[in-house]
Amino acid sequence: MINGHGDEFSGELKANFSSNVWYGADNAALYNHLYTCMSLTTRYPETDAASLKLDFAKKQDIKPNQLVVCNGSTEAFYLIAHAFSGKTSLIVSPTFSEYADACQMHKHQVHNTKRNQLFENIIASSPDLVWLCNPNNPDGFCFTVQELKSLMKKFPQTIFVIDQAYKDFTLNESLKASEINNYSNLILVQSLTKRYSIPGLRLGCLISNEQLIDKINPYRIPWTVNTLAIEAGKYILNNENGCFPISEWLNATKIFQAKINALDSFETTSTETPYFLVHLKKGTAKDLKWFLLGEKILIRDATNFEGLEGEYIRLCTLSENKNNLLISKLKIWNQNTIL
Amino acid sequence: MINGHGDEFSGELKANFSSNVWYGADNAALYNHLYTCMSLTTRYPETDAASLKLDFAKKQDIKPNQLVVCNGSTEAFYLIAHAFSGKTSLIVSPTFSEYADACQMHKHQVHNTKRNQLFENIIASSPDLVWLCNPNNPDGFCFTVQELKSLMKKFPQTIFVIDQAYKDFTLNESLKASEINNYSNLILVQSLTKRYSIPGLRLGCLISNEQLIDKINPYRIPWTVNTLAIEAGKYILNNENGCFPISEWLNATKIFQAKINALDSFETTSTETPYFLVHLKKGTAKDLKWFLLGEKILIRDATNFEGLEGEYIRLCTLSENKNNLLISKLKIWNQNTIL
Repeated sequence: MINGHGDEFSGELKANFSSNVWYGADNAALYNHLYTCMSLTTRYPETDAASLKLDFAKKQDIKPNQLVVCNGSTEAFYLIAHAFSGKTSLIVSPTFSEYADACQMHKHQVHNTKRNQLFENIIASSPDLVWLCNPNNPDGFCFTVQELKSLMKKFPQTIFVIDQAYKDFTLNESLKASEINNYSNLILVQSLTKRYSIPGLRLGCLISNEQLIDKINPYRIPWTVNTLAIEAGKYILNNENGCFPISEWLNATKIFQAKINALDSFETTSTETPYFLVHLKKGTAKDLKWFLLGEKILIRDATNFEGLEGEYIRLCTLSENKNNLLISKLKIWNQNTIL
Repeated sequence: MINGHGDEFSGELKANFSSNVWYGADNAALYNHLYTCMSLTTRYPETDAASLKLDFAKKQDIKPNQLVVCNGSTEAFYLIAHAFSGKTSLIVSPTFSEYADACQMHKHQVHNTKRNQLFENIIASSPDLVWLCNPNNPDGFCFTVQELKSLMKKFPQTIFVIDQAYKDFTLNESLKASEINNYSNLILVQSLTKRYSIPGLRLGCLISNEQLIDKINPYRIPWTVNTLAIEAGKYILNNENGCFPISEWLNATKIFQAKINALDSFETTSTETPYFLVHLKKGTAKDLKWFLLGEKILIRDATNFEGLEGEYIRLCTLSENKNNLLISKLKIWNQNTIL
């Protein structure tokens, strides 16, 4: 496991730009519901979160035996890596580090590719699996649905593991779960925690055709999704928790990025999501992170993402007040950092 | 993963004898505490439950780097099996099936031994690991601390994985966590969920010396213990939730066993815990389970425990009323089952 994920500071914060989670969720009703479910914790959870699996499947118009409910999407990556132990994996970088960690734990031959060289590198290395995040973490880049379909069709011997944790964080179209019925080489990984602001509960799933699910299922450990996570999932799928104003959030992102770019130390990279990378033209991301932590602001030092050259931070757009608080501190950094 | 664990019925029950969990816990204060922690779920949990690790270590008088907090003790078994992938494991049977499942998943050579042949079978097979549950599930048998110490001393090349999930469920002495400083070949696995009646939250730990912990840690998946489980653990370790009347529970067990033994179809086996096996002299455990489920009573069909010959159920003593309810139904079964 690498050191240096986002959200790794347990103290009190004025603003947390470090994890890509919808900041505006009103989960009061969910919390009240979970309180009424507390006595269920005196019993074991279902070994495979069976009741939530039914709800997930119904919502996505697939069969229950086409998905596995997981302890966050992270468990899904390790399950997939385990089921394909020792195989060759090509990871589209820079991206979430857990794909590489999972593959290395399970003795894959791991190669990285920049996305603009993906096609050539699949031909060159004939990987058993390609791992990509769409929209991508950390930079918010999106492949189109057409590009993904074309890749899956062109390379039928390669399994495409597509992490859709942030699919609600863009206006771009994403692959539908039911596409697993059209492509034998597709595994989708989803998360309920980003959109619904419950990363602390650990809840995700992997979706694929029955043959691949049958290959992955033997590697599951029983009871990994706890009772309150299962109940939260069922509640969320059956009760919308207010609107999710993605257009407004993306507009706010543009304004936030413009303010950052107005400071000469920083340059944002383009994004299709409310989170994005910022290139530091001077200073180090590590120093900036510590400076901001002194102001009780947490950012993600993104320099440890494989394939990024230079110093980067990742930010997720928050409320206008919090964004402006960060800008005011970045101004101070901007004025005081020479190299 | 095997099919047929305890507590596998999600419907409403009058009495659940199928899982070994303290039935009398009053967790109202814990539930209220967790409700106040709900907003913490908007952030990621600590990757390794670090704050709970500190509390666990302090409580057990060991160092934080001598333990790993786990998603239930089950995660601990799979972590250990993974870290010792491909090794030889000797499992003291009959016992909890997850040891064998974990070892098989990670390609161990798995042997089983009856406990009265353990010594000879360690000599015969020179296993890398011995797995035993103390007090044992399903039958409540206990090795003495002296026997365990003698085994560890006699076989220094063999690592002893000792599952202490039920250590509070007996008056017998159990190995203290600090014994890891005296034996280089000891891994203890503990659970908070049985004594505190929170199996739904998934919370356990493994304890060993720094060298073995360093060997196991690279196989951890981040964030497996969710925020509410972490907060529950810290609350429990810092607030006793009322008395735990183990002597009274064990006395009630003796009365319960005597009533069962008075029926000619059933014979209980001896136990040091409130849970125990019942041998069926006629009929099958499967049929009995279904008959009782019709009465909204759940028992554990124990026939699938490796090493048990014949038909067995496992019961955990509940309140007097519930025990008597079961006895009344067993009487009906007793009268109506011929073979």
